[in-house]
Amino acid sequence: MAKTETAAPSTAITPTREQDYAEWYQQVIKAADLAEISPVRGCMVIKPWGYALWENVQRGLDGMFKATGHKNAYFPLFIPKSFLEKEAEHVQGFAKECAVVTHHRLVQDAKGALIVDPEARLEEPLIVRPTSETIIGDSFAKWVQSYRDLPLLINQWCNIVRWELRTRMFLRTTEFLWQEGHTAHETEEEANAETSRMLGVYQEFCETFLAMPVLRGRKTASERFPGAVETYTIEAMMQDRKALQAGTSHFLGQNFARASGIKFQSRSGGEEHAWTTSWGASTRLIGGVIMSHGDDDGLVLPPRIASAQVVILPILRSDDTRRLVLDYVERIAGELRALVYHGAPLVVELDQRDVRGGQKKWDWVKKGIPIRLEIGPRDVERQTASCARRDRPVAETADVPAAGIGERVLRLLDEMQEGMLARAREFRASHMRPIGDPEEFRAFFTPRNAERPEIHGGFAVSPWCGGEQCEARVKESLKATIRCIPIDAVPDGGFDRCVVCGGPRQETVVWAKNY
Amino acid sequence: MAKTETAAPSTAITPTREQDYAEWYQQVIKAADLAEISPVRGCMVIKPWGYALWENVQRGLDGMFKATGHKNAYFPLFIPKSFLEKEAEHVQGFAKECAVVTHHRLVQDAKGALIVDPEARLEEPLIVRPTSETIIGDSFAKWVQSYRDLPLLINQWCNIVRWELRTRMFLRTTEFLWQEGHTAHETEEEANAETSRMLGVYQEFCETFLAMPVLRGRKTASERFPGAVETYTIEAMMQDRKALQAGTSHFLGQNFARASGIKFQSRSGGEEHAWTTSWGASTRLIGGVIMSHGDDDGLVLPPRIASAQVVILPILRSDDTRRLVLDYVERIAGELRALVYHGAPLVVELDQRDVRGGQKKWDWVKKGIPIRLEIGPRDVERQTASCARRDRPVAETADVPAAGIGERVLRLLDEMQEGMLARAREFRASHMRPIGDPEEFRAFFTPRNAERPEIHGGFAVSPWCGGEQCEARVKESLKATIRCIPIDAVPDGGFDRCVVCGGPRQETVVWAKNY
Repeated sequence: MAKTETAAPSTAITPTREQDYAEWYQQVIKAADLAEISPVRGCMVIKPWGYALWENVQRGLDGMFKATGHKNAYFPLFIPKSFLEKEAEHVQGFAKECAVVTHHRLVQDAKGALIVDPEARLEEPLIVRPTSETIIGDSFAKWVQSYRDLPLLINQWCNIVRWELRTRMFLRTTEFLWQEGHTAHETEEEANAETSRMLGVYQEFCETFLAMPVLRGRKTASERFPGAVETYTIEAMMQDRKALQAGTSHFLGQNFARASGIKFQSRSGGEEHAWTTSWGASTRLIGGVIMSHGDDDGLVLPPRIASAQVVILPILRSDDTRRLVLDYVERIAGELRALVYHGAPLVVELDQRDVRGGQKKWDWVKKGIPIRLEIGPRDVERQTASCARRDRPVAETADVPAAGIGERVLRLLDEMQEGMLARAREFRASHMRPIGDPEEFRAFFTPRNAERPEIHGGFAVSPWCGGEQCEARVKESLKATIRCIPIDAVPDGGFDRCVVCGGPRQETVVWAKNY
Repeated sequence: MAKTETAAPSTAITPTREQDYAEWYQQVIKAADLAEISPVRGCMVIKPWGYALWENVQRGLDGMFKATGHKNAYFPLFIPKSFLEKEAEHVQGFAKECAVVTHHRLVQDAKGALIVDPEARLEEPLIVRPTSETIIGDSFAKWVQSYRDLPLLINQWCNIVRWELRTRMFLRTTEFLWQEGHTAHETEEEANAETSRMLGVYQEFCETFLAMPVLRGRKTASERFPGAVETYTIEAMMQDRKALQAGTSHFLGQNFARASGIKFQSRSGGEEHAWTTSWGASTRLIGGVIMSHGDDDGLVLPPRIASAQVVILPILRSDDTRRLVLDYVERIAGELRALVYHGAPLVVELDQRDVRGGQKKWDWVKKGIPIRLEIGPRDVERQTASCARRDRPVAETADVPAAGIGERVLRLLDEMQEGMLARAREFRASHMRPIGDPEEFRAFFTPRNAERPEIHGGFAVSPWCGGEQCEARVKESLKATIRCIPIDAVPDGGFDRCVVCGGPRQETVVWAKNY
């Protein structure tokens, strides 16, 4: 029953991905009404269609955190400077990008202008949290007395500030939203197990909800979280073949426990420092969804994370059929809204705006809604709806009977979700390959036209000698970095010489350009 | 089947409410493990048992906001100083309690100490949001072009900072969590209707979820939100008979629309300023729950907002019955957890900690959990559980059959919820009365013993001449303020002379001491 409409504009988004991927990304965000730049340097406004995605991320992850025994809590926004200084590497890592509160009052000066009151200077400056290890550590030190208090499994949903010079909506902003898990354990083994359990939770969430396949792996020393013993990561491949670090899980050893004094009486009666972990994922995930699935007509939302799953577009041409069509669409909307889709009510939009049908349709295409149902007087007559899926060409529609439409929609959504994950997996597979030859490696990461760097490269799985100099050389010359020392299986060419210096292989690693 | 155990310690909380209400409040928070003071001046740490209350407040209110057509969004934490200055009264109201970010970097000085980098001073200081009218207004000005874009109904869940000198956990802290609704409308009438609709939502939420009756009313000019045309409030009576302002809804007229340039093309083609509203409720509500329902044994949680509804306390006396009892309690826990309680799964704790039974029980009493089920070997034998309700004396228990325990628990929870609301209403009724006589008014608000101010007063419903001097005099001399000009019916003595100056009555108002 598929049919084809008259030709649409070639693409709804200008430029296309091929023409200018970075600009395409900004235009998709604008066209989908996800977010906008704010007048505050580096900060963004997350608009309702974008924030609904974040609410769905929160609901999905929060359920998984609670199912693994974690509880939510809330800690102060402000971190005293002296706290940040407790862990030497940690403060080095964050000092350069801190928003610092120094005063607590504004006052009128002699001319009546409002100024920062010099009399209201804080004794100790407060840092707006760039991460919360040190302030949470202070509480943990009070909460943990004995091995019976362990493990302590806490999560926090909050805003974070890191003063960024070059910002990009969702991917890198001065303020962003995230969750940060913080846990304390009796033994090194338990803390290690927690670190990898939560990395697994992130992987499962990204693949199941976001239809975004990720590679799990370990970071090299130069890419570690400041103060961590090991940092683990999940890395996704965007459609421009760059990597996106989508979540990290840190094994902190006893470093932060020592810095914050998290000590406990052990089973044998001695006093020991706890072993801690932390792990986080942020609004950056939304950038990952945009770049994993978006096409040249705009956003394409995986149904399980979509702000709404279905939009109904009534075609109201004449006044005498208007009431008829509206009654019919309201009945269908009611039926669909009564459905449960993966544990929550199906979200259905009914667009009755007084704008042209073509514009209406394209608005929803650009917003990436999974299913569009167009319904006019002929559909009422035939008891059908014209159904279009966002993962197929815009002009492709199918007439579906109103009877049983709920079941059909649910089936379709699951099919789309699976299809999007499969497609993303294929895409990644076709741009990830083992490379042992230095020349091939260089070519892989070199645009053919230096003036206008086209989409190129991908994930190179290549041997590395373990030397930081080799890492630095590639970063400098090719702008590629070691994304991870993979845990998940990757195509391995069996090469044994470092792709940079030719020295003996210590690890096989994944190299890519990245966000 | 009610029976009485051996006498418990007189009260679990020291001091009692009668002895020292303010200290009782702090001790309840501590004993229930709701929150703790943080090392950051005026900020609190919300611990898991307290944060779960906030999550339930969020879920309840958020559902009501969405059902009334509002959508969530997120705006920057930082507000440029110049934005705050756009509305003259507004900035006057908040200038004295602002956390000001002036720098964006820390750096090591010549001696290696970490200091605020003088080179990294911001051109314009940023204020950590004390409320978001001005920053949201900036977005609204972009989003609203035509009457077709109205009404614009937005809500934000976020953290807020107001530099407070005297803080008290949940009631007044430098940082707190809240939601702020911001809406823009075509006409004054529509904005007024929104203001009272949301006041009604707050009232319904407080009464239905928190079992906390509130009076709706209008604020006098001196108590208005800075920049508002009218401020409406809900006021609850705590057990020390003081008022708690539990939520506010502001009609902002066109003041903020003018300040931010929120203009639209009207139906007649002209350009008009929108009419805006804002409304907020915060973690303060948790303070209200504590002081509405808590008793001398600690927290008492209304079931609909409780962090968990039921705790099961297995009695594991000997090794040979241990497995038997655990199997039995796990079966009951499973059955209860499968229940849906007002739209969400019933939350059941199973306390298997290795501590004495008495201590275990008292821990949960102090945490205010609505229902405790104690289960030992004899209960397994008889297929029963020993059931205690937090709204009855601690020693009172009833044996209930395991068969049908789910239904019984659900019924009990609804009965408790209703009972708590009824009890709070009665309490309020017995401490709210019309007072027309100045001497009686003075006596009502005067402690009998000035050295040790006992619990006294309540809500005095008294005539007022409308003069700010009378308001100020009472505040100064009796520490009571006009909580509201009531919308809800209150006992009215029909007096017609101002209770302060004897001048002609302009309004009948509710006076009380307050938090």
